[in-house]
Formats: sequence, structure tokens, C-alpha cells
Amino acid sequence: MVEEIVKLIRDDEYFIDFASYPLRGTVAKGNILLKSEWAVLSGTEIVEKVLERFDVKVKFFHRDGECAERGVVATLEGDAYNVLVCERTILNVLSFMSSIATKTRILVERLRQKGVHTKIAATRKTIPFTAMLQKIAVIHGGGDTHRLNLSDMVMIKDNHIALYGCVSEAVRKVKEMASFSKKIEIEVEDEDTAFEAANAGVDVLMLDNMPVEHACELAGRLKRAFPHIIIEYSGGVDPNNIEKYACEYFDVISVGRLTSEVSYVDFSLEVSRSEP
Amino acid sequence: MVEEIVKLIRDDEYFIDFASYPLRGTVAKGNILLKSEWAVLSGTEIVEKVLERFDVKVKFFHRDGECAERGVVATLEGDAYNVLVCERTILNVLSFMSSIATKTRILVERLRQKGVHTKIAATRKTIPFTAMLQKIAVIHGGGDTHRLNLSDMVMIKDNHIALYGCVSEAVRKVKEMASFSKKIEIEVEDEDTAFEAANAGVDVLMLDNMPVEHACELAGRLKRAFPHIIIEYSGGVDPNNIEKYACEYFDVISVGRLTSEVSYVDFSLEVSRSEP
Amino acid sequence: MVEEIVKLIRDDEYFIDFASYPLRGTVAKGNILLKSEWAVLSGTEIVEKVLERFDVKVKFFHRDGECAERGVVATLEGDAYNVLVCERTILNVLSFMSSIATKTRILVERLRQKGVHTKIAATRKTIPFTAMLQKIAVIHGGGDTHRLNLSDMVMIKDNHIALYGCVSEAVRKVKEMASFSKKIEIEVEDEDTAFEAANAGVDVLMLDNMPVEHACELAGRLKRAFPHIIIEYSGGVDPNNIEKYACEYFDVISVGRLTSEVSYVDFSLEVSRSEP
Amino acid sequence: MVEEIVKLIRDDEYFIDFASYPLRGTVAKGNILLKSEWAVLSGTEIVEKVLERFDVKVKFFHRDGECAERGVVATLEGDAYNVLVCERTILNVLSFMSSIATKTRILVERLRQKGVHTKIAATRKTIPFTAMLQKIAVIHGGGDTHRLNLSDMVMIKDNHIALYGCVSEAVRKVKEMASFSKKIEIEVEDEDTAFEAANAGVDVLMLDNMPVEHACELAGRLKRAFPHIIIEYSGGVDPNNIEKYACEYFDVISVGRLTSEVSYVDFSLEVSRSEP
Amino acid sequence: MVEEIVKLIRDDEYFIDFASYPLRGTVAKGNILLKSEWAVLSGTEIVEKVLERFDVKVKFFHRDGECAERGVVATLEGDAYNVLVCERTILNVLSFMSSIATKTRILVERLRQKGVHTKIAATRKTIPFTAMLQKIAVIHGGGDTHRLNLSDMVMIKDNHIALYGCVSEAVRKVKEMASFSKKIEIEVEDEDTAFEAANAGVDVLMLDNMPVEHACELAGRLKRAFPHIIIEYSGGVDPNNIEKYACEYFDVISVGRLTSEVSYVDFSLEVSRSEP
Amino acid sequence: MVEEIVKLIRDDEYFIDFASYPLRGTVAKGNILLKSEWAVLSGTEIVEKVLERFDVKVKFFHRDGECAERGVVATLEGDAYNVLVCERTILNVLSFMSSIATKTRILVERLRQKGVHTKIAATRKTIPFTAMLQKIAVIHGGGDTHRLNLSDMVMIKDNHIALYGCVSEAVRKVKEMASFSKKIEIEVEDEDTAFEAANAGVDVLMLDNMPVEHACELAGRLKRAFPHIIIEYSGGVDPNNIEKYACEYFDVISVGRLTSEVSYVDFSLEVSRSEP
Repeated sequence: MVEEIVKLIRDDEYFIDFASYPLRGTVAKGNILLKSEWAVLSGTEIVEKVLERFDVKVKFFHRDGECAERGVVATLEGDAYNVLVCERTILNVLSFMSSIATKTRILVERLRQKGVHTKIAATRKTIPFTAMLQKIAVIHGGGDTHRLNLSDMVMIKDNHIALYGCVSEAVRKVKEMASFSKKIEIEVEDEDTAFEAANAGVDVLMLDNMPVEHACELAGRLKRAFPHIIIEYSGGVDPNNIEKYACEYFDVISVGRLTSEVSYVDFSLEVSRSEP
Repeated sequence: MVEEIVKLIRDDEYFIDFASYPLRGTVAKGNILLKSEWAVLSGTEIVEKVLERFDVKVKFFHRDGECAERGVVATLEGDAYNVLVCERTILNVLSFMSSIATKTRILVERLRQKGVHTKIAATRKTIPFTAMLQKIAVIHGGGDTHRLNLSDMVMIKDNHIALYGCVSEAVRKVKEMASFSKKIEIEVEDEDTAFEAANAGVDVLMLDNMPVEHACELAGRLKRAFPHIIIEYSGGVDPNNIEKYACEYFDVISVGRLTSEVSYVDFSLEVSRSEP
Repeated sequence: MVEEIVKLIRDDEYFIDFASYPLRGTVAKGNILLKSEWAVLSGTEIVEKVLERFDVKVKFFHRDGECAERGVVATLEGDAYNVLVCERTILNVLSFMSSIATKTRILVERLRQKGVHTKIAATRKTIPFTAMLQKIAVIHGGGDTHRLNLSDMVMIKDNHIALYGCVSEAVRKVKEMASFSKKIEIEVEDEDTAFEAANAGVDVLMLDNMPVEHACELAGRLKRAFPHIIIEYSGGVDPNNIEKYACEYFDVISVGRLTSEVSYVDFSLEVSRSEP
Repeated sequence: MVEEIVKLIRDDEYFIDFASYPLRGTVAKGNILLKSEWAVLSGTEIVEKVLERFDVKVKFFHRDGECAERGVVATLEGDAYNVLVCERTILNVLSFMSSIATKTRILVERLRQKGVHTKIAATRKTIPFTAMLQKIAVIHGGGDTHRLNLSDMVMIKDNHIALYGCVSEAVRKVKEMASFSKKIEIEVEDEDTAFEAANAGVDVLMLDNMPVEHACELAGRLKRAFPHIIIEYSGGVDPNNIEKYACEYFDVISVGRLTSEVSYVDFSLEVSRSEP
Repeated sequence: MVEEIVKLIRDDEYFIDFASYPLRGTVAKGNILLKSEWAVLSGTEIVEKVLERFDVKVKFFHRDGECAERGVVATLEGDAYNVLVCERTILNVLSFMSSIATKTRILVERLRQKGVHTKIAATRKTIPFTAMLQKIAVIHGGGDTHRLNLSDMVMIKDNHIALYGCVSEAVRKVKEMASFSKKIEIEVEDEDTAFEAANAGVDVLMLDNMPVEHACELAGRLKRAFPHIIIEYSGGVDPNNIEKYACEYFDVISVGRLTSEVSYVDFSLEVSRSEP
Repeated sequence: MVEEIVKLIRDDEYFIDFASYPLRGTVAKGNILLKSEWAVLSGTEIVEKVLERFDVKVKFFHRDGECAERGVVATLEGDAYNVLVCERTILNVLSFMSSIATKTRILVERLRQKGVHTKIAATRKTIPFTAMLQKIAVIHGGGDTHRLNLSDMVMIKDNHIALYGCVSEAVRKVKEMASFSKKIEIEVEDEDTAFEAANAGVDVLMLDNMPVEHACELAGRLKRAFPHIIIEYSGGVDPNNIEKYACEYFDVISVGRLTSEVSYVDFSLEVSRSEP
């Protein structure tokens, strides 16, 4: 991602930032401030490597995945032109990634407080062009990336089933085709199709949009019958209601809004002239 | 953007979507459904051009910038493999862009209802790698893109002033350097610096984070003294409080959260096998 | 791959093929000939799409994965300059991919004749820059791609174990980190570590470079104790000795030489001037 | 090529190699071993530059073009994650290039032992996407790259002649068009066309698929009549039969199989944890 | 631009510069000589950064924008192969950029000697693929870049007016659409349309191809009526006639030939072997 | 080049050309006018293919390499937005390429009028990033491209000789290294080195910056002694003095200014609204 973000800054600069050009040769030093009460940081390693490419030295006081409190989270120093040209983009990267890491952490912690070890996973409902950044942030928050692309774990979703005709036929055709190295997951919406899919030999069952009590009870029965099958629950989960979804039989809860709802953690940069 | 989104889909497919591969040769037809109550559509033209590249025909019932209600917003038909490979990415693009267009429209309409013609503008506090998509969506919502990159309108911000020493010195140095073809904007936080900047010859004054009543009164005095100067207000504006910011002297209100807070408008795709 | 091969041809043309330039405007028609006795074709679909980009029409008499015999396998027609500029590259693609598909088919068929249903899989011992082409050809030959990159199925190999210290520690650390969507495979070289790894919870066990009789007997015992574990055998397999490796307990045999030894299937192109 | 191979590794890593991720921060040291009896090394300089980009230090005991014997050919040291991520790709590059350099050397040496100074040249029958790597390896082996692309030396081949109508017409038209800076070569299959082409003014004559005794005798007569013409022989040559093709009148023998038949020279990497 | 020029050199090298290859390992030192009487240098900073990428050290005795006289303008030292491979491209960059900087400086100085402070601006009549290089050189020469692309300042030209129907309609429609951050310029050819455009609210008026006396008088009247409007003059200006165009009411004179007529400033490189 | 110029236009458009945006949906038709007295056209085929990509139909009345007179040289029709966005770039391409083709033609014709058949060749003293465009234009003008990159014909220039020590040593080392498929040229400045080089076996001798009478006489003697050697003359040639350089013994005259001095042939576009 470092190359891509360096390019993002070069594209943003485009030709010359005339407002900053007369400051070339001046050394600026500054602080990156977290203005929210707390956040799980994500993006610090990327930002360090990006700024290195502009000869700006930055020192973060926390590492990716650690919790920071309001106040200075990093100091930096470099040529004033470069600092000003990089400013907005690195703040955007930090704010974006940390917002996702923080939301992931909240979801994970709330589940842990209910005593269950279910993983919180992202989905492919990501923001265009940022899926990789979002998935790295999910890891920093303690979550699971879920599959990374369509050639990764094979997923048979509702539209696939509609086109194949039925669950067992879908699983049969896909297993014939797919590499042994791939897990096969299927999305099911009721008990019958769940057992049909389990019998057909899938690795992961996604219980999609079922009432949680029903889903939890069904998951228990599936686990007893098919102990190797992974159970994923999906549907309507967010930080405000996550506690309701605590069920010991869910291996994974996937949360679309983890990556399709964003609200920036607030970071800012304050610089001053570095006197020798 | 069409090329970039086609590439996004190719990268998402990566090698082969094994779940969809056995469906090659089947024709799928389907509907794109808006599941929220209403939304300002954005992304329909891009999605049409992207799907054309995969030989999938799509027909939207509304154009970008138009308001759609819950229900079917488009029909499509194409090879099942291609439809399934494109599905998630085109929904993400539509959901993302429409969410921004819709929020922009709400802000604009609420101001219009208060009888002012202030423009609603985006900022550079965008989501990494999506600034162009976001700014197109802002136009579809009826807003103003604000500058597109650092070589566009020249902006002198708080960190610039800290490094130049004072407002008039900053403006003087920047005007000397910048092309005649650029407007020059400066961010000011109080009355004295506002007048200092206006006297120094800027084109746009941004009143940043001032209490709105004070800012409105100051804007009025600035307008009388410098009728050609454009007044931009910024700070803490969002759809819930926009009415408070109605002030006839503000030419522009810029809203960071327009592009740094995202909550997907909910679209889905439902397909079935097309029988001859 | 189509884009990449079109670019390969453009790079090969570089500026102008002076030998062919005076023939611009002449229509050439020709035949693609298989000069070996038989081959499993691979690359026909890619070549069709590539030639379409140069307005050359080609018609293959077989599809990828089908067996062709010595003689004409396709006819083509187009502007003589374009045909001549594409000639060498499309023959190279066809020859390369078909050579791998053919070898895969031979391995698969020889195992089938011994009555076992073990999959034949490629490895990452591929020729630089051609891994995707090679893996598509393996599918056309009836084989399994194995993992596509390092973020696909997680593999713990001998060097990993050396660095982690022991098998169970390696598996524990990797399972903690890896997404639920990934299978975990480990390479083991004796019975003790095989059982240690199976107990630690891997999905796939690779028996590496063990004498085949011993490996087969061990695989049988592992299968009885851990019926969900997939057994992969690797080491020294090639078309000449594959029959020796027929063992009903091997789910997969991976063959490095499938992609690291190449001997072109011989195709040529013969063209003539198309008279109206 | 360094950039391209760095990109190959980044693409292979794709997101994260979960098997190696927990080893970040550990220093690994290791040896690259040649497991064949001997080989002409090729790729060492490229591998050194590639590993430098991952902060892995490597020291080869031989340079490209030198002969190495079974055993350790290099030592390396670096962060364990980076070493493991680079491992397969650098071994593939070394194995691939060294296999071609070694085969070239064998061909060259066998001709030298017969007392002739004919050059051994590659052709454009290369493996897709690797032509540059292959041609560098040919140089390391002591061979001649032959032309690098279609805009390099101008070659009139059998299909050209078929379309132009006859040899002298083909040469006339091409000479009219081609830059003075290019040599012009033509492929001929019998004595008449060889003399026709020589009289028409070509720089290089390729005697294609003629019985070698006949070709050698013809080459002698051509040399006496046209001392400036370069004679290239082509057809069916490989390391097992090269001695038969020793003819003092051949300036060049081109060998398609030099680059269309590959059999990896066997290298491996063995690493251990570097204790301070 | 540094990356792009490094790539230009790599593309020019293509495979191997055989004429320089045997010199690898030799250290070459040399001088860059200006062979014209004097020139305003442009490109020195880019060339320094480009050569750094090839480990060639270069020291220029002047900085971009400074005037150099005939003789040595820089010394350099590096591996002979790299120096020879970079030679032609860096001389081309220096010669090209300095020719434009020098012409700009002459135009600016001749106007200054006439006592006016009109800016000299480039246009979009640039040489394909070099617009950025040309505009940087214009800055080094003391000129103004004018707009950088079509999304920068909005320009309504003769063809636009023809399609909109009339000046005031064109301005009205464009102002409705364009961001507040953009200036709006219009090209007019007579007095009536000039006043029509000024009344419609443009920021910049371009008086196009009017006799200069008439244009100057009209500019004076426009300035009195619309003091905030910027007046740009265009048409037939070159270094030989620039003095005729001195008019105190012109803010900007744009000169198409600044970038569409090029005559290289003559630089050469002389190297010798560096003895230890 | 078509792809590259399409990209150039997309980069020039950047986001939206606001001046043209309200004209989307209007059909514009127009004429491309040559405003100079006459010119050899170059770039028409490229411009046609580029405009096709924007759905703009264009019809040129002449083909590349043909002579056009003042007036309409093409008509076009397409969506007004697209026409206006492409306008400047396609005029720049046409003007640039035609200026070089025209100058080449003049040089060629003036030599032909003196009764000699010497080729006019370009050099590598090209404008950065445009070498390919320039060399295509040279062909359209009737000239010779000379070598295309450093891996094409091998050239030993003054700096090479300085580093190798002497001419014969330079030729010997280079011949040892270079592929048989390359010609070898050397730059010499006097008679002794010319004969030394000829004896050493070069294919092309460049007589560099010698007085033309002396060079012509020397060329005659070289031709008699070495009839196969090609003689190239270089130094100070331009359209005004080319007649002086007519010498029957020069095979090639290379002209640096052909590509390092540019003066646009003047083309413009005039459009109007297409009424149904």
C-alpha cells in the first residue's frame, strides 16, 4: 500500500502546491493529535513508510492495534513543503483506518464481555478501492478479514443458488470445480437448506438474516451433527446491538457495516517552524 | 473512472470465481433494488459503462442526480458468470456514490428551505483513493466539488500561516508565486486576520470554526467592504444542524463530513435464470 | 490475461515490423497446425480474444481441454501485417499452455487407470511471470491449481518449522493469526510430526519426500484417525513414474515438474494471400 | 527486470503470508544450495538487487556466467518474513535462468570441441513474458540473443515470402522500407532461393531445415560468392546432436529449444534463526 | 517527472547498450558543457535526481532559473556504462527545458525594459507528452504556467461560444455548473462581446487576435469599468516583436509559440576515464 | 501511440471540462483547417483512431505522407463535449508530427534535386517522451528513423572511444560482445580513424563534423576500399544549407535539428452545432 499512497500524494500535489512552494527549504516540525477521546490506531506503519519517502521523519508513540488517548500521538519533522503536501492524505489514511480498527475492537470486546469467542469478520461490502486498507485495519482491530477476493474461499450465495436450482446441486458442481486448497462456504436461510448444505460437504455455513435465537439454536444442532463445519452468522449486526448476538455456537459473525459505514476518527496536524 | 472500476472487478475476480464458473454460458437476468425509502442516485452512468465491458446490459429507470424510491431501480441481463463477478463491486459503487449524493441533496435542500443560496461544498477530507468518485457524487447531489487537488485553487491554511509568520506575509509570498489563473483562499479564525487577508488581496476567505452568529455578522461586514470576495464558512456542519448555518452572506459552506462519514444506501441485486 | 498478451505483442512489434509493413492492406488467411501426434489444447480461448483485438478472425476446431490430433486445429484470416506480427506470440502461448495441459492430462489419466481418484496439483515452482497461464493450463488438463499466492491457503513449510522451533508451535501461532476462511497446510517429513500437526488442527498434511510405500501406509493411518484431514503427497513424481504413486489414501499429489519442466507442443502457422 | 521481479513477489504475497507473519522481527540466515552436480549460474545479479529491496543481504560465491558445483552457492540474512516471502520467487528465477545458461554453455562447448567458432543463438520461440530473462541467460551461457523484437533486425520468413510472391520481390520491398541501421535476414529452404536472396542484397541468410551436409556445402559456396553475408543454420539442433552440426561455414546456429524447452536446475534455500 | 525520465532512460536502454557494456566497472568522469553563448538553466534539479538513481554524482554550478554562460555547467562521475546510457536523455531534457526557460526570460525582460509588469504566460499549445516539463521551464524562466488542464481555470473559447449561441448564454451556463473555486475566462474578439462578457461576470477576459493598439485602449476602458477583471492578450507575440505589445492594461500576455516552437539550447557531455 | 494519446486527453480533461459540460448531448460538426500554405501531413491515422475512441467521426482528405494545401483537411462530427475535450490535443499531435514530416520532406527533396540518393536520417537528439512520434513523422516525410534505442544498432561514439582508449580497441571489444544481428557504427573525426575503424570491421562509418568537401572526398576513398561499408555524414545540416551537402558517396546524412527544432505547422478546428 505504501507505493499506492505515495502515488496518491503525488497525484494530489499534481503540479505544485503554490501555497507551500515558497516554504521549500524551511524545516517544519509538528505533532499529530488525536482529537477523539480514544481510538485503536491503524495506519501508523504505512504512514511512517510513506513519510520516509518524502524524507519526513515521524515517530508514533503507539503501534498499529494499540489504543491511544486524546492528545499527541506522533511527532514529525521535515521540509515544510513536503510536510504540507503530505498532511491531508496521511491524516485521511490514519483517520480512515483507525475508524475501522476502533469499531472492530468495540465489537470484539463487547462479545468477549459476554463470554464468547466468536470472531468478528469483515465482508466484501467495502468502499471501492480501499478493501485492502479496510482489511488491514480490521486485523489491527482484532477482527478477521474474511475472504480477500473471489478466488479466495469459494462462496455460494443466494443468487448462485437461484441459478443452480438448489443447494445440493450448487455444492456438487462447485466442489467438482474448486481446488482442494479452498474452503467452500454457502449462505443459507433456513434449517432445511442448512442441513442439505452440510450433508453436501461444505466447510462453512453462513446463517443469513435469521432471527438470532433461532440461528443460535440451529447452530448448536449443526455443530453436534457436523463438528468440523464452521458456522458464520450474518445480518443486521452493529456496535449498538452486538451483545444480542452472543451465541457460543457462532464461530464467526460477519458485519457488513464494519466497512460500509465510516465515521472518521479525528486526527489533526499542527506544525511550527523548526528553529536551529 | 470506468477503467479503474473494470480493473477493480478484474482484481476482485483475481483468477476464477469457482462458485460461478460452472454457470458460464447461462444467461442471468435480474433487478437492482433500492432497499432504503429513497435516495439520490449516483453511479448509474459509471455502472452502465462498466457492465457494458462485461457484455451485461443494464437499464436504469433514473439518471444520476435523480431521486429514486424503494423498489426496482434497474434491470440487467448477461452471462451469469459475469453478472455474479460484477455484482458486489457495482453495488458498492452505487451504494457509496448514492450515499454521498443523497447527503449532499439533504444539506442543499435544507438550506434552500431557509431561503439562502449558499453552496454546499466538499473538502479534501476524503476517503483515500475515492476522492474523484466522491466529488462526482457531490455534483450529482447538487453540491460544489471545492478544489480537486493541491495545484487547483491555492489554499493558505493554519499551518501555512504558522510557517509564514503572519497572514499578510503569507498572502504576499503566495501571490508572487501563483499563476494568475488560480484563485487564492485563506483560512482565518478571527476578524482581524479576516480583514488583513482581504486587504492583502485574496479571492476567497474561509471563516473557520467561528460561532455561526459571529461569522455571519462578520461576513456581512466583509461583503460590504470587499464585494468581490467569496465567503466560505466551515466547521461542525452536518445534516442535523445545517439549518442553524443559514446566513445570506455565506457564499459557500464546506462540510468535511460530507466525504468523511459514509453510511451506504442499501442496494441489492436479485437474479434468476433467463429462460428462452 | 488477454490484455497482458496484447501488450506482449505490442512490445514485440515495438515500433514497426519492417518485414511485414509493405503487406499492410493485404488479407492473409492461414491454418494453425499441430505438428505433434496429439495434444490437449490450452490457450485457444485466450488466443481468440487476443486476435480479435487485432481484427484477425480465428476459428478453433476444439475447445480448451479437448484433445486434438496432428493437423489443422484452427483457421484464421486478417490483415497480413497483423497476422504476421501476432504469429510468434500466439504460437508461443498455445505451445506453452498446451504442453502443460497435455502433461497434466497424462498424469491424471495414468492415475485413473490405476483406479485411484487422487488429484494432480501444481505447485508454486512455476516459471517466472507465467504462473497464471500455467495454472489455467493445469485446469484444462484436469489438474488442481493448488494455492494461487501466499495469501491463499496458508502453508507451513520446512523453513517455517525451522524458524518457529517445532510443528505444534508453528501451527498454534499461525492458526491464531490466519483468517477462518483459509485452510492451513503443513509439510511434514515423518510420522511423528504428521501426527503432531494433525493433532494441532491443520486442514491439509503434505507428506514430503517420503518413500511412497511408507507414505501410503501412514496416510491410511492418518485418514482413520483424522478423517477430515486432506493428505497431499509430494516428491519426485513425473509422467514416467506416476503409476508407482497410486495410493488410495492420497487426496492430492503435487508435482513440481508440472510447471518447472516445459517442452513445447509444436504448433505452426501457414498463411497465404486471400484472393477475393 | 529488478522492478518486475519485485512486483512479482509483491503480487505473490498479495495481502499477507499468514504462515510467516508471526515471524516478523526474527532474523533468518540461510544458504542457497545447488542440488544438481554443476550449473552455469544466471540470475545472481538480479536476485541480489531484488533482495536488497527487501533488506535481505545475499552473497553469491560466483558471478553470472560462472560455473558452480553442487553445494552452497550463496548465503543470505534478513528479516524472516521477507526471506520467506521472497524464497520461492528467487529460487524460480535462479533455476530458470541457470537452466538456460547451462544448456547454452553445453551447446557452445560441444561446438568448440569440434573446432568451429559458430555462435549459438536463441530465437523468438520463447516462453511468454520471459523473453528478456531468457536472452540474458543466453548471454551468460555464452550464446547470442539473436534479434530482440520485431523492430530489431528485419526477418523475412516463409510466411512473408508466401505473401510477397517470391524471394527477390520480398527483399526488394523490405529494403525500400527498412532503416539503413537494420540488418536484413531471410529464411531460405533451397539453393536457388539462397542465391536469389544473396543477389538481392540481404545481410543474413538462414538455411532452414536443410540436411546439414547439404547446408554446409551450400554455405561454403555462398561464402565464396558473397563473403559479407552471414550464414545462419536452423533446424532440429539440441544438446544431444549438436556435434553433427559443426560446419566451419555456419556463422550462427539458432536453436529454438534453447528457450522452448526448460528443465529447472535445482536450487533450494535452507534457513535457520540467527542467534545474536 | 523524475520517475518518468528514469523510465525513459530504461526504455531507451531497452535491453543492453552493447557499445557501453564492456565498460561496466570503469569509472567515468565528465563535464556538461553549454555550447551556446548563454542560457537560463532549467532541468538541473530533475537531472540531478535522475542521475542519483543511476548512482551518478553530478554537481551543477547554477540552479534552475539562473543564467549560465558558455562553458562547463556541471561535473559528473559514475560508472561508465550508466553515464553513457543516461547521456543523450539528460542532455535532451536539459536542452529542451532550458530552451523554453531562456525564451521565457527574454520575453519577460523585454517587457520589463518597456516598463510594464505584464505576465508572460504559456498556453495549452504544448508539445505532446511534455506539457509538465514545459510549464516547469516556463516558471524557471519567470513566466506564468496558465491553466494546467481542462479542469483547472474554466475557459470559454470561440468554439464554445459558437455552440452556446452567444457570450452571455455561454457564461451563464458555465457559471451555473462550475465550482466556486475556479476562475472563469472567456476569449473575445471585439469590444461588444468583451463588455457583454464582463457584465456576465467572468474573472478573466482574453482579447484574442486584436490589433494591439485597439486592444490596449479597450483594456484601459475595461479596467476602469471592471477593476477586478484580469485582462489577457493573445495573438502573434514572439521574442522579436514583444516590445510592440507593451501595454500597461494587459495583466497577462499568453504566447503559444513559447511551447510550440523549440530550438534546443546546445549542451554536450565530454567524459574521460577516472584514474584513481 | 493511440492508447498513450487517449490517456493524454483523459489526463488533460482530468475531472470535468466545466466549460464544455453543459454541451453534452449536443452534436458538433467541424472542420480541421491547415492555415499554413502547405504541409506534409503526419498524424492523421493516429488522430482517426484516437477520435474513434471518443465516438467522434473524422474524415481526412489526405493520408499520412501526402501533401496538403491551405484549407480544410478534414471534417469531423461527434458529441460536443468530446470534440471540445479532444480539440487541443489532436491539433497538437497533428501540428507536431506534420512539422517534422514537412521538414524531412524538404530536406529529402532538396537532395533529390541535386541528383543524389542519400537518405535523410533522424538522430536520438529527440524531444523527451516524443521520440516514437517523431520517428513515425520522419518516415511519413520520407526519411530514415536511424536506430530506435540503445539496444538497436550499436553505436560507438566519441565518449566511448575516449573510454576504450582507441578506435580499434573499441571496435574489437564491442564486436566480441554484440549480437550478430546488430550493425556496428562508429563516429570518426578524421581519415586515420576512419580507416582504422573500417579495417576493424564496422558496418557503418559516421563522418562527424568534418568539412563537407573533405568528408565527401574521404567517403569516396572509403567506398572504393570498403564497398560494403555504409557512410553516414553528420554535422550542422539544416533545410537552408542541405544543398551544400549533396555528395554521391554519402549513404546517409543524419540531421539532429530534424527532431530538436520544432515549429508547429498551424492547424485549427472550427465547429458549429449540427442541426438535424
